[in-house]
Amino acid sequence: MSGGHVEVLALEGMPEVRPGDDLPAILVAALRATVEVLPLREDDVLVVTQKIVSKAEGAIVDLTTIEPRPEAVEFARLWDRDPRQLEVVLRQARRVVRWQNGVLITETPHGFICANGGVDASNVGPGSGNLVTLLPADPDASADRIRSAVRESLGVDVPVVVSDSFGRPWRWGIMDVAIGVSGMMPIDDLRGTPDADGRVMRSTIRATADEIATAAELAFGKTDRRPAAVVRGARPTRGEGRIADVLMPREFDLFP
Amino acid sequence: MSGGHVEVLALEGMPEVRPGDDLPAILVAALRATVEVLPLREDDVLVVTQKIVSKAEGAIVDLTTIEPRPEAVEFARLWDRDPRQLEVVLRQARRVVRWQNGVLITETPHGFICANGGVDASNVGPGSGNLVTLLPADPDASADRIRSAVRESLGVDVPVVVSDSFGRPWRWGIMDVAIGVSGMMPIDDLRGTPDADGRVMRSTIRATADEIATAAELAFGKTDRRPAAVVRGARPTRGEGRIADVLMPREFDLFP
Repeated sequence: MSGGHVEVLALEGMPEVRPGDDLPAILVAALRATVEVLPLREDDVLVVTQKIVSKAEGAIVDLTTIEPRPEAVEFARLWDRDPRQLEVVLRQARRVVRWQNGVLITETPHGFICANGGVDASNVGPGSGNLVTLLPADPDASADRIRSAVRESLGVDVPVVVSDSFGRPWRWGIMDVAIGVSGMMPIDDLRGTPDADGRVMRSTIRATADEIATAAELAFGKTDRRPAAVVRGARPTRGEGRIADVLMPREFDLFP
Repeated sequence: MSGGHVEVLALEGMPEVRPGDDLPAILVAALRATVEVLPLREDDVLVVTQKIVSKAEGAIVDLTTIEPRPEAVEFARLWDRDPRQLEVVLRQARRVVRWQNGVLITETPHGFICANGGVDASNVGPGSGNLVTLLPADPDASADRIRSAVRESLGVDVPVVVSDSFGRPWRWGIMDVAIGVSGMMPIDDLRGTPDADGRVMRSTIRATADEIATAAELAFGKTDRRPAAVVRGARPTRGEGRIADVLMPREFDLFP
């Protein structure tokens, strides 16, 4: 249940994150720097973008090392894409969901269905023309490590969400969703809960972690160097949720 | 571009909205009541849920007047649904997108693709067991009227978003999206804009209005009586956008 007031504050002064960096320590330092304006509270959620998690964990591929398969070369030629990036996406994919109209949608090893399997060339860093990031291997574990470091250093156990920007069918534009969580349930199942009139709400599941990721994105700004934010007042259900809880099993999927 | 700080404040003290109510006037009164804590600014966005817009506009159907077609009766029997609600959805629909696994997904006359065509039985009001709301006939026009009333009464021209909760493929849970806008562009096309490294971002369209709707939802709480909120700091692009701008034309749709 929400208290009617939600605040999102992007962490300022984050340095460029590089492979091998201790990201939890970097985030703790940034949180310390903002502690004057924002003393961290147990009802805060720390949102961290996939991009800096992947960079710190070295989930980066140098496209000059990639030999694309002929199908990738042909698709790239038709649609003005980089065939090496397509090759990386295909190698990562559990399955190809759509591969048409210039768009490659795959299911990642984590079970996410998204364009380019989350493989992304933007904002990798200066002089990074041939580098792409992959999704973190285990984004829940990445969130766990950040949460532990914050708890140990600042004495507050805040949930952590790792976010990424996904497109969606039928509507233009990307929205941020959660790809990893620690310390909260990613969805709130309100089925069986009475609505404001006392009528039982039969089909309402709230995508709480995704909503929190989206709210954080509003404060990031897409081309700014703000890759982390604190979301206050969203009041997620605390618990040891995993991102798999949000993924719809294939038997319920109407858009395979 | 965002300033790194976003705040969402749900309007308190909203009365139960009834058919024929002057919703713009009700919202202006609620805004006046919160003006002490939140003087409205030009960089605010007022988000109003579909439910109260539909109720004020009388977009309500009494299910006791509905005779369901045989297919609706059979589907309802199989999946424990109300056949009369299914009938209302089908009558409204421009086309049926999916009708299986207990789920009816249609394209509405506005071009939205969503479960039950936006026809909703929850939170319609006390003693409303047989009432469902339809989507507003023209949610952009609804937003225009609210924006005009706020501008005339409070002297501030704030963009208005009418929001609704939609499910999505592949993930459990609903997220709020925009179904009507006034005074802002619903998407921000960053294609061709350099990213933080100066690399041109080729495929980034931000779903700004949908993100703002989602941020507002975090402050609403699903079973609370908070059907409107002010989102501050999101910095949407001002302009006379229409919700159709966010809808993907059929020729780009990979999930027809």
